[in-house]
Amino acid sequence: MSPVGEDKMATPVKVAKTDSWDDCFHAAVEVARQAGEEIRRAFSSEKRIETKSCAVDLVTETDQKVEKMIISTLREKFPTHSFIGEESAAAGEKVELTDNPTWIIDPVDGTTNFVHGFPFVAVSIALSVNKEVVVGVVYNAILDQMFTGQLGKGAFMNGKPIHVSGQEDIKKCLLIGELGKSRVKEKLDKVFSNLRAFYNEENKTHGCRVLGSPALDMCQVASGSGDACYMFGAYGIDVWDIAAGGLIVRESGGVVWDTTGGPFDMMSKRVLCASSEKLARTIAEGLTQMD
Amino acid sequence: MSPVGEDKMATPVKVAKTDSWDDCFHAAVEVARQAGEEIRRAFSSEKRIETKSCAVDLVTETDQKVEKMIISTLREKFPTHSFIGEESAAAGEKVELTDNPTWIIDPVDGTTNFVHGFPFVAVSIALSVNKEVVVGVVYNAILDQMFTGQLGKGAFMNGKPIHVSGQEDIKKCLLIGELGKSRVKEKLDKVFSNLRAFYNEENKTHGCRVLGSPALDMCQVASGSGDACYMFGAYGIDVWDIAAGGLIVRESGGVVWDTTGGPFDMMSKRVLCASSEKLARTIAEGLTQMD
Repeated sequence: MSPVGEDKMATPVKVAKTDSWDDCFHAAVEVARQAGEEIRRAFSSEKRIETKSCAVDLVTETDQKVEKMIISTLREKFPTHSFIGEESAAAGEKVELTDNPTWIIDPVDGTTNFVHGFPFVAVSIALSVNKEVVVGVVYNAILDQMFTGQLGKGAFMNGKPIHVSGQEDIKKCLLIGELGKSRVKEKLDKVFSNLRAFYNEENKTHGCRVLGSPALDMCQVASGSGDACYMFGAYGIDVWDIAAGGLIVRESGGVVWDTTGGPFDMMSKRVLCASSEKLARTIAEGLTQMD
Repeated sequence: MSPVGEDKMATPVKVAKTDSWDDCFHAAVEVARQAGEEIRRAFSSEKRIETKSCAVDLVTETDQKVEKMIISTLREKFPTHSFIGEESAAAGEKVELTDNPTWIIDPVDGTTNFVHGFPFVAVSIALSVNKEVVVGVVYNAILDQMFTGQLGKGAFMNGKPIHVSGQEDIKKCLLIGELGKSRVKEKLDKVFSNLRAFYNEENKTHGCRVLGSPALDMCQVASGSGDACYMFGAYGIDVWDIAAGGLIVRESGGVVWDTTGGPFDMMSKRVLCASSEKLARTIAEGLTQMD
């Protein structure tokens, strides 16, 4: 279905037997839980804040500490695997997705929430093999909600199967939106105009919620708490925000597309998740594209 | 501080000894917990939805059932008290606040969230005496977070004291916003323009979150998860959404004002909560007033 899948068939790479993704899955859940403990500990304590690209893009000690812990734990178990991490990238490491099994990590998705004590803070861990995500784990450490997915094996929250709502009608939909990190006028104009495209007299959605955690936004759609969400690179998102969530949404029966309505490419920094193809199409057609 | 307080001093009414508000407080917590059980049960089951004023203003069986249960429980314990409830008002009962001890009840704050399974759904119960709220309870039934306040006795979440963040700088603030229930163009223009007033190049707030539950918005400010929130009647809010939350914010050290910057009148359907007077003033000055 995805171009990634075709890629895989065109250039099969010997990596390891498929069973081993089970080991990877369990390792990901375990390390996400460990990371969650660290995040919870720091959540209510004094946090040292540095500024990354600008005042609204916050990074804390915890992000860096947690990412190091996750990578070193997984590297010890899987020494041949590659790694892409938000903090490593921020520190200058090259972000390159190859066919080699690659862990894609966001240690603290929702850093602004973390800094403010707003309880939507997650660890996001995905494993990509031949550029296709086979394991996805998103753990809301504060609310203790562990969202998981394995390719072809369904999606779960705290061990219970989850499903998208199946909603097709934009008028009955609860959108999960984001306002993004940019404060550049031209970008904000588009962000708000997109929001307004589904929040008006004609398209009476039931409403819109904004949580500030892309990975958890996607999990809301996966678990049916919301019906759709979309994000652009201009919002400040990247592959580590959406790799695990993308698999979880697909495995819960949802649609994961590019915001244009084309196939999803997690490296493109654009994603549209919805509970049905019909709803996804309505939203893709109504969006002003960014980037 | 509030005009309500002055009112009280001007016309002292014999109601009952102050101690008895402790009994009322415990009764409110107990009945909120009972209501929460009912809400949790219904949260994941089939829900019968009727439409109230319009398609986005949903009311369910649960709202009505829970309100009846709360009122009958409290009326049995406090037969001389008066009652104001969202569902009773919707059914045509007069909304009148007198000096008599009056329970102000929102059985399911965040009904749209309830219908969609989005986990911000609360029971809100306040007791007003001489038009001043002396007891406030807001219970997020899904996340099991019990926010409480008693006049002069502080505010708590699950029994632990809570405090506002104390943030004074709009640039470092996390706003908790609402988009409201109205889909009338003129109103939406103001809603979005107000949001944009604090989400631009000049006023770089850290961000804005939208939860869809006015009572819980106020509790985010009270517990320091957010720094400020504001709401107008045009959003679809009323006294039952803000009576309990208002006390909880004040008791956690926060500021509760009218959106104009004047004294808060819970019957006015306008409220501005902030973690400091300075922040409240900045927001009041930046808002385009509605209604």
